[in-house]
Formats: sequence, C-alpha cells, structure tokens
Amino acid sequence: MSFKFSTEVRVRLPETDAVGIVFHGYFFTYFDVARMDYLRNLNLVDPFGTGRGMNLIVRAEADFRSPARFDDVLVVQARVSEIGKTSVSFGFRVAHRGEARLVAEGRTVHVMIDPATSRPVPVPQTIRGTIRAFEGSDLKERSQA
Amino acid sequence: MSFKFSTEVRVRLPETDAVGIVFHGYFFTYFDVARMDYLRNLNLVDPFGTGRGMNLIVRAEADFRSPARFDDVLVVQARVSEIGKTSVSFGFRVAHRGEARLVAEGRTVHVMIDPATSRPVPVPQTIRGTIRAFEGSDLKERSQA
Amino acid sequence: MSFKFSTEVRVRLPETDAVGIVFHGYFFTYFDVARMDYLRNLNLVDPFGTGRGMNLIVRAEADFRSPARFDDVLVVQARVSEIGKTSVSFGFRVAHRGEARLVAEGRTVHVMIDPATSRPVPVPQTIRGTIRAFEGSDLKERSQA
Amino acid sequence: MSFKFSTEVRVRLPETDAVGIVFHGYFFTYFDVARMDYLRNLNLVDPFGTGRGMNLIVRAEADFRSPARFDDVLVVQARVSEIGKTSVSFGFRVAHRGEARLVAEGRTVHVMIDPATSRPVPVPQTIRGTIRAFEGSDLKERSQA
Repeated sequence: MSFKFSTEVRVRLPETDAVGIVFHGYFFTYFDVARMDYLRNLNLVDPFGTGRGMNLIVRAEADFRSPARFDDVLVVQARVSEIGKTSVSFGFRVAHRGEARLVAEGRTVHVMIDPATSRPVPVPQTIRGTIRAFEGSDLKERSQA
Repeated sequence: MSFKFSTEVRVRLPETDAVGIVFHGYFFTYFDVARMDYLRNLNLVDPFGTGRGMNLIVRAEADFRSPARFDDVLVVQARVSEIGKTSVSFGFRVAHRGEARLVAEGRTVHVMIDPATSRPVPVPQTIRGTIRAFEGSDLKERSQA
Repeated sequence: MSFKFSTEVRVRLPETDAVGIVFHGYFFTYFDVARMDYLRNLNLVDPFGTGRGMNLIVRAEADFRSPARFDDVLVVQARVSEIGKTSVSFGFRVAHRGEARLVAEGRTVHVMIDPATSRPVPVPQTIRGTIRAFEGSDLKERSQA
Repeated sequence: MSFKFSTEVRVRLPETDAVGIVFHGYFFTYFDVARMDYLRNLNLVDPFGTGRGMNLIVRAEADFRSPARFDDVLVVQARVSEIGKTSVSFGFRVAHRGEARLVAEGRTVHVMIDPATSRPVPVPQTIRGTIRAFEGSDLKERSQA
C-alpha cells in the first residue's frame, strides 16, 4: 500500500515528555494535522473536519516503532485506505526525515454525521469520487451508497 | 494578600518536556483548572467559564520560581484579586506539596462579554457580591457598575 | 473481564476542541493518568513509568463510544489484561460519571526495557506477582520468564 | 520596535477549545516554536534550548487581542528585545495572516544556566554578538559581562 500524500511536522518542546521523547498521545495530533492537510489538498476540509459536526472519530490506533525527539522533523504520510457506507478510514506512517527510519504507524476511522440529527449518513458520492481519483486502486470501498 | 482557596493537580507525563520539568505553558492550564474550581466552589461556573462566550481572557502572566516534575503534587491557590467595571483579575500561587516550595505565581485577567454582541458588559452585582463575600477585604474593586 | 481499579478525571478546557468535545488524542492522556495511578496503587510506579527509561509504549488504541465535554467527570477504569515475556498490556474503560454511559475504551502495550542497553528484558517476577495478586484470574499470562 | 523574524503556525484542532477559539495557554507554545525557529535561524539552538539545561524560563506573559480559530494561519514574529547580564528577553507578536489583525502579543524571559551547577551564568559574548548583529539598534543591553 502506497502513500501519495505527506506533510511535515517539527517536534515542539511541549510535545516531548520527561522520558526525552514525544509523548505517544501527540502522534494522534500529528495524524490529525496530516489528515486535515490531506483533506485541504483535495479541497475537502469543510465536509470532513472543520469542527462543524460533520464527521466523528470512532477509532484511533498507533504502533510506535522508534522514538522521536525535540526538534526532529517528521514526515507524516496520510491516505484514505478504505471508504465504507458511512465511514472513512485513514492510514498514517511517520518517518524521521533526517534518519529515514520508521517512527510510527497508525489508523483512524471517522463516521459521516448529519449535524442536524447526529446520525450517520452515507459518505457523499462527490467525496467518494474525489478520494477515489486521488488514491486510485489502493482504495478499498466496502459498499457504495 | 492571602488565598482562601486552593486545589491540587498531579503532574501528568505529557505536561513535562524533554528538559525533564513541566513545560511552562502548562501552568496556564493549572491556573485554568484552579480558576474553574474556584468558580465552581462559589457556584459561579456558568457565568464565567463554560465556554458559552460569557467571559474572555485578555491577559495571562506567570513567574516561574522553581521546577515541577512528573508525578509531583502541586497545590494551586487561586483568588479573585480585583474586579473592575467589566473585568475580573485572578491571582495564582503554585506550591510543591511535598517540598513546600514556591513553584510559580501568576495572574489572568478576564472580561465579561455579552455573547449576543461580543461587547464587554459590567460584572453583574450578584457575581460581585458573591466574590466580595468570599474574598473579604483583600478584594480590590476599582469601580462598581 | 472486570476492572478492579478506577480513577477520576475532570475534563479541562484545553482538552476540549472547537467541535465542543474532548479531542480524541487526550484520551491517551487519561489512559496514562489512570495507568500511573494503577501502578502507584500497587507501589509499582518506579519500575514502570517515571520516565527513567524502564518501559516503552509500543501500541495504543481507543474506540470512542460517546462524547465527553468540558467539566464532565470521567471515571477511568484500568487493569493489566495481559503479561507477556517482556510486555505488559493495559485495558481502559472511560465512563461519564453523571450519565453512566460508556465514553471510550482502549488498550496500551508496554515493553520492559533495560535502560543501559535499551533492549527488552523479561517482566520481573516481583512485578508479575504483584499484578497477579491484584488482578486474579482475569489476568492472562502468555509466558513466564 | 520592529521585528526582523517571523514564522508561521497553522492552528491545530487540539489547540482550540470548546469556546471555539485557541486556548490561551497554547500561545505560549506558539511563542516557543517561534523562539526556537529564531534561534535555529541564527544557529543558536544548542546554547539556548535543546533541553540540555542551558537556559531556564523565568517569566512568560501575553495579551490576547483577538481570537484565533481552527485552521487559521498565524504569523508569529519574534525578536530578542533585551539582553541582561544573565538573562535574555524575547518579544512576540501574533497576527492573523488572512485578516491582517493582531491576535496576541507576549514576552518571555530566560536565564542562562550552567547545567553543572544550575546557577545563572553570564550570557556568552558570542551569543550577544550574534544577536546584536541581527537585531541592531533595537536591542537593549542592560549590562555586558
């Protein structure tokens, strides 16, 4: 599975902890930064994530492969790996830019929500089409509305 | 100037940084926790701070006297030091519980806002009265509406 | 599977986001707070988590069941679910105290590390014994050193 | 007083709070990001800030002029405003890039510390010289070692 999009973050001092490395919870911030940048790149920020209630995270997971430290530049790759009927799954891969080593991998799953009813709604065809055009054959689609 | 109210926080790992101590910006979180606890204690959480736009922070400052480390228990004292026409100033003092040493001192200034207009409004008499009754003669009041 | 230990956290304003709910990444902070409190309760804070390099997180995951909001009090249940040769897995369950609803569930996996060599080492028998005595028959042990 | 250096940050979702704006404490993170970027630009990251104990923050303050929201791009200007015998003061100015309005202003004061003794030491002449060359006549120097 390949990644066609990446963004960079530089580790900030408050993201590190007394162990001397990035606190693991901050990788979910890096994933979110990359996810928003991915969506911005496809002109999809509004429907997915501006905080207006149109999507909801239901799962997040990460495997931590090697440490990241203060001032390290991390390359965060992001992709949509799967679109379900009402859900969109993102995959992430974080590498240390200077040392070209894998730092973390992760996944988040989001559900499209109707802000009026707070109920899941099918992922709109326009969003499916935009993501499919970008991701190509790597994208899994389990069901189409 | 004395403090009549305090709350406790235990330093969490993500609040420390690679220097091995609490990142200075987190003291403003501790101040905020103590401020909300102070207001809750006086049954004033709603008008001041539930995120419904009724007050706005306009200034924050802190002096860092000695370091705090992971798992340290900090006693955060809080008080309203001054009520202006539309503003309320809080003072804070953070001590290390186990070592009885001063860790930080600080101050935040908040302005009462009408959520409908986003304009400053006079601090209501009921709030003034409640705080005055609690703080007693230590409270400065620069002007009464 | 039951939980024999819990701790409470009150949602702080900076833990919420513009969507109006707790940012999902902060649940890993809540898990960490509960994990440290669990270990402190068993007098095991030093070997597991004081930032002195003796354990390393290798995986974290969470499922988000319902939102938490500013000032909500959350009950975070924690347990050790499994001890491997060099790893310790924690399980978490977060409930809304006032509404008795499930908010999140999660798991983190930690590996015991020799700080001198940064290599995994077997989970010490004393730690196994202490946790086994506390968790009882719910604890899975895949291999004993 | 002019600024000769600036950096940009884009507001991340976890930096906002339930009020819908950036939680005030995060401005101290933005200041820190800009300060490190300023020092990196002058090739001074090591002596000031890598977490190796060579400088210590003793004061931080900010005035909040207007709100910043999710996904806003902020221009953070930074400068060294003053060098004392053992201290270095930074000034900051945060503007909203798209709307060209002032968002916040602030200041942090740092003391040079000998890591071996944890005692303040004079700001080294090489650091003074590098900063003086960059800031020019706007820089105040209260005393030279």
